[in-house]
Amino acid sequence: MTHHLCLDDLERAAREVLPGEIWDFLAGGSGTEASLEANRAALERIFVIPRVLREVAESTTEAEVLGRRAALPMAVAPVAYQRLFHPEGELAAARAARDAGVPYTICTLSSVPLEEIAAVGGRPWFQLYWLRDEKRSLELVRRAEDAGCEAIVFTVDVPWMGRRLRDMRNGFALPESVTAANFDAGTAAHSRAGGQSAVAEHTAREFAPATWESVEAVRAQTDLPVVLKGILAVEDATRAVDAGVAGIVVSNHGGRQLDGAVPGLEMLGEIAATVSGGCEVLLDGGIRSGGDILKAAALGASSVLIGRPVMWGLAAAGEQGARQVLDLLAEELRNALGLAGCDSMGAARRLGTRAPGYDPRTARRS
Amino acid sequence: MTHHLCLDDLERAAREVLPGEIWDFLAGGSGTEASLEANRAALERIFVIPRVLREVAESTTEAEVLGRRAALPMAVAPVAYQRLFHPEGELAAARAARDAGVPYTICTLSSVPLEEIAAVGGRPWFQLYWLRDEKRSLELVRRAEDAGCEAIVFTVDVPWMGRRLRDMRNGFALPESVTAANFDAGTAAHSRAGGQSAVAEHTAREFAPATWESVEAVRAQTDLPVVLKGILAVEDATRAVDAGVAGIVVSNHGGRQLDGAVPGLEMLGEIAATVSGGCEVLLDGGIRSGGDILKAAALGASSVLIGRPVMWGLAAAGEQGARQVLDLLAEELRNALGLAGCDSMGAARRLGTRAPGYDPRTARRS
Amino acid sequence: MTHHLCLDDLERAAREVLPGEIWDFLAGGSGTEASLEANRAALERIFVIPRVLREVAESTTEAEVLGRRAALPMAVAPVAYQRLFHPEGELAAARAARDAGVPYTICTLSSVPLEEIAAVGGRPWFQLYWLRDEKRSLELVRRAEDAGCEAIVFTVDVPWMGRRLRDMRNGFALPESVTAANFDAGTAAHSRAGGQSAVAEHTAREFAPATWESVEAVRAQTDLPVVLKGILAVEDATRAVDAGVAGIVVSNHGGRQLDGAVPGLEMLGEIAATVSGGCEVLLDGGIRSGGDILKAAALGASSVLIGRPVMWGLAAAGEQGARQVLDLLAEELRNALGLAGCDSMGAARRLGTRAPGYDPRTARRS
Amino acid sequence: MTHHLCLDDLERAAREVLPGEIWDFLAGGSGTEASLEANRAALERIFVIPRVLREVAESTTEAEVLGRRAALPMAVAPVAYQRLFHPEGELAAARAARDAGVPYTICTLSSVPLEEIAAVGGRPWFQLYWLRDEKRSLELVRRAEDAGCEAIVFTVDVPWMGRRLRDMRNGFALPESVTAANFDAGTAAHSRAGGQSAVAEHTAREFAPATWESVEAVRAQTDLPVVLKGILAVEDATRAVDAGVAGIVVSNHGGRQLDGAVPGLEMLGEIAATVSGGCEVLLDGGIRSGGDILKAAALGASSVLIGRPVMWGLAAAGEQGARQVLDLLAEELRNALGLAGCDSMGAARRLGTRAPGYDPRTARRS
Repeated sequence: MTHHLCLDDLERAAREVLPGEIWDFLAGGSGTEASLEANRAALERIFVIPRVLREVAESTTEAEVLGRRAALPMAVAPVAYQRLFHPEGELAAARAARDAGVPYTICTLSSVPLEEIAAVGGRPWFQLYWLRDEKRSLELVRRAEDAGCEAIVFTVDVPWMGRRLRDMRNGFALPESVTAANFDAGTAAHSRAGGQSAVAEHTAREFAPATWESVEAVRAQTDLPVVLKGILAVEDATRAVDAGVAGIVVSNHGGRQLDGAVPGLEMLGEIAATVSGGCEVLLDGGIRSGGDILKAAALGASSVLIGRPVMWGLAAAGEQGARQVLDLLAEELRNALGLAGCDSMGAARRLGTRAPGYDPRTARRS
Repeated sequence: MTHHLCLDDLERAAREVLPGEIWDFLAGGSGTEASLEANRAALERIFVIPRVLREVAESTTEAEVLGRRAALPMAVAPVAYQRLFHPEGELAAARAARDAGVPYTICTLSSVPLEEIAAVGGRPWFQLYWLRDEKRSLELVRRAEDAGCEAIVFTVDVPWMGRRLRDMRNGFALPESVTAANFDAGTAAHSRAGGQSAVAEHTAREFAPATWESVEAVRAQTDLPVVLKGILAVEDATRAVDAGVAGIVVSNHGGRQLDGAVPGLEMLGEIAATVSGGCEVLLDGGIRSGGDILKAAALGASSVLIGRPVMWGLAAAGEQGARQVLDLLAEELRNALGLAGCDSMGAARRLGTRAPGYDPRTARRS
Repeated sequence: MTHHLCLDDLERAAREVLPGEIWDFLAGGSGTEASLEANRAALERIFVIPRVLREVAESTTEAEVLGRRAALPMAVAPVAYQRLFHPEGELAAARAARDAGVPYTICTLSSVPLEEIAAVGGRPWFQLYWLRDEKRSLELVRRAEDAGCEAIVFTVDVPWMGRRLRDMRNGFALPESVTAANFDAGTAAHSRAGGQSAVAEHTAREFAPATWESVEAVRAQTDLPVVLKGILAVEDATRAVDAGVAGIVVSNHGGRQLDGAVPGLEMLGEIAATVSGGCEVLLDGGIRSGGDILKAAALGASSVLIGRPVMWGLAAAGEQGARQVLDLLAEELRNALGLAGCDSMGAARRLGTRAPGYDPRTARRS
Repeated sequence: MTHHLCLDDLERAAREVLPGEIWDFLAGGSGTEASLEANRAALERIFVIPRVLREVAESTTEAEVLGRRAALPMAVAPVAYQRLFHPEGELAAARAARDAGVPYTICTLSSVPLEEIAAVGGRPWFQLYWLRDEKRSLELVRRAEDAGCEAIVFTVDVPWMGRRLRDMRNGFALPESVTAANFDAGTAAHSRAGGQSAVAEHTAREFAPATWESVEAVRAQTDLPVVLKGILAVEDATRAVDAGVAGIVVSNHGGRQLDGAVPGLEMLGEIAATVSGGCEVLLDGGIRSGGDILKAAALGASSVLIGRPVMWGLAAAGEQGARQVLDLLAEELRNALGLAGCDSMGAARRLGTRAPGYDPRTARRS
């Protein structure tokens, strides 16, 4: 295998191997892709103030993720239809996550039935989209729980899909071999039409806007910890805590929903300060290195979700590639923690940060 | 018809079909075009903080526009000489607006007589430039009212024209077939001279600086609601309310008047907070998507004017193209409202915003 | 003559006609040219908040410049060796200034004797560099006064010359035909040496650092108003007022002295507020349009100095070209004043401004 | 010799003469090189407010550096394996520093034994990396003291090496002729492996994370002044003062350790204000001109370390080239001091600064 030294290397490898329209499906955002780009810009704008001369020889990348120790402060984010990227799809990715010691989030729109993915072992989570029929939604939750999933990651920022222009231009549709495996056979997103995305059409047919009552319904259905993914407003974070969730994912859905939505990182500090331990605060969007995880921690995240990069690895080299992504993140994070004088993610959360545009004479640590 | 997925697609289509000097007349700004570019930059700098899990299934793009329900929170902005862009000119654009359920602003410098445009129906407004002869100005107001116009949009930022260098370089003059149809035959802007814009020359001959007394005179002439277009200073917004106008358009005239004038969006929040319901606050300048309308709302606008994009549609495909622009904006806005957790423009106005350059740890919601 | 519509057009024309090393001498800054570029960036960062519906039909570009009415709020800045740019050099430029109704600043390093330039008439000023021999310095002042100069512009930011790398790389030296005409024949800057600028060598031989005592000596020598050119610190502005000067020029010497010196525009508002009428506050550096003059006024300048652009006109078309530059500035300023709702520079100084990077919801007028 | 007019000229010269992988070893940073670039960006963002008309004829570049007068406010920074850049390596660089009157920092990883370098004379300092065996670390300190070094510069930001991707991609290893001359023969970094840096491997084998106890141990071992290099957090600066060090170097290790670490310059003002004379505060990272030294002084540094530029000179022209770099810095600093109205570095530290992004009307001097 080639020597991939950073996730960008794997991005290039994936781009070479994937057909253009599948690359676009993975990489694209909505509208002008302003929020997609802003996710990276927000990370690049932040600088960390490292500490020195502290005991780091025994530093660890282990961290609590939804109340359980994980090898890394991360989980694999939900990404739909992973068999688009590699024939083994979700199974390969889940095995890589299991072996790396991090949770793997099974998608409502997985291309392998959730039970088969959960059977891989490790720490499966289940991502829930709210369906037009509440009963079918709760049935998915029940199936996930029965299959051994440890948590329900409820996506709350998709009342409907954002306008993903790349898919629309490509008239993107799933190949016959890839289906929404948790759904009935008849609902696949295979039809192709000019200026339309078959995936978006399918979503529009199947999904319905969730509400806070939907959250109640899920909580009533299961004792699994519930995580709300897609929170950006402080008020919504507060309400989530009041609703008794175990965690929130501060996220703009990788720039794929509201074009113009603020990057999660911009809201993270404020949300973490407000939530103040009421639930776990995860970050999602644009994390591309262990150093990025350090930045997220310094701004208040206890862990992060990693989506596209794991798919790059999957596309480039299947299970082994996905594992390589997680290994690189581990190596980078281990390196970064020590360089920042931190023996753990807990210490990382106490680091200071600076953003450019400051007059260093007047800027004060908050 | 090609699948245009966003307004930029139609801009490209219009640019291909229009002669260079007509494109320049439409697209250009004054001087270095700093204010023209700043309008877009101001929008791109703003990010919205979406809300989640709220009832959006029944969300609507309908909104009050000058006190009456419109299908969209917008009106077509005044643009001179629309027959430059398509043989049917203002008639085609007005029909598209009528069918889309939004007001259409007839120009003082329309290339079809105002009465003919108003006869298209829908909700015609009339844009007024102040002429050297006050009586002729008021005569235009009277004609507009007689023709069924619902409002007078008084342009207050053109004591004279800005230096639009593209037109000057092109020695831009109207073709014989396009005239200022509301004026006497002898006043057309057809003569061509090096380093001069015939349109600017014509304007200099015909127009005079309006004053607050002119506003009084218009208000005395008609009972129609009066909107002042071109307000940027908070003090002027306050005075406009005191003068009893129904609305103001916060605008730098699409970057075509004072080069270096602040973008309307930069002043919008402050003006909306100061006006505080004393009149409707509209925004103008650079709106290119439904997401942009959402941003304008979040900063305090109740609705917006859309100018150049409607002309792109007109140039690309006549009435059908203009309609396509309005349909796209409707579809984008509908999508964006839901993704932001808003059931209406009223909810959108309560959204928070962030601008880059913040330290997310110290930034506080205003 | 070609239709030059803005000063940038004349810059291009001058660049075409001037030999490379003379262009570099005129256009270059010191070091990395960071301060040179920052002068323009500072102007481009500022936006003006125009007012509307005010009486502007009778607006005037006339303004007080050093206590006397001038046709424009400007003077021609001191630029050395103007015969480098055109055979008629300072004489042509001074005639253009005279005819445009603005003061012209004769240089210590003029290539025509100061008396000949002053004989052109209009409003000559004299720029003073402090020489190694104080008596020779004061002798220059006496000569200027005798020749009819109206003011002494004392350059205070040249204890020695900045490192102008373009001149050093070019081994720049004056052609035999161009000399420091106010000096003895033996002091010309004609010798050429690798990695050296003959002009810099000459300056190093002749000049000495001025001090506040030098200002006293000049004031004791003459009753002419004294202007200190090159002030950037508020403390120095205050001290200048205490020293009884008639004006200060807030300036970083066109980015030609300390590379890394703050642009004058960045300090202007603070200095103007502190000086508060104690003396006239002029701005220098990067003004390229009438709109730029408006910005300078809005930030507190009563008038500006224009240097390089007048030389562009001179190079492109001699006296006529220089005049064209001043005419363009007049036309642009007249246009801009009205578009900003100002009947005069006095009104312009009360305009508000905004700089990008603001959250428009929280920004407040100062 | 060519006329090098600024350090960038020497950078180009070095880049031409050095093999690609050696250039990369010198020039590169860690990870995405964000911190490397940010060092320069931070300097470029700062502008100085010069003073005028003050006595500068007798201005001096001399300054206290670690309590002793030096010809310039700087020392040559530690750079490993200088024989990579020129056969005479550290000896040539140390001679240049000696002749220029500035301290030279001998590296733990010098390619000439420290005793030989110290024998060059001048003011040798010794840079210490903490080794796995504390006794060997202290043995290095003892050797340095015995050899006549004047200070111990303890690098505190290398618990382990940053991920320098260029070296890893190049599989960078030392040529046989270059070794870690202060170490036993067996520890050289010569083996080459794909995706690995032999230098990093060597470092990982030899070094161990230092702690505050290591500082105590060094202080107990020697009476030489101890400088901690690599401080960025205010808390660590305070602790360093409490630990009795003679100085700290505010530094992100030239962007070679934590990618994403804040530039030293961004923290400098705050640290200098907090330390408030408790020890000397030096700056390191990105200094490329005398003007940059002025900026560092204005933000609170008493002196700076210069690393890569001296190596450029060394690579381009050996001892003479290294000397040229120091001479250029001296000439630039002398020039800049006077242009800023400063007779010494002490005066420079009282200069005001501005950073772009300010509204000049509201910005206030700190």
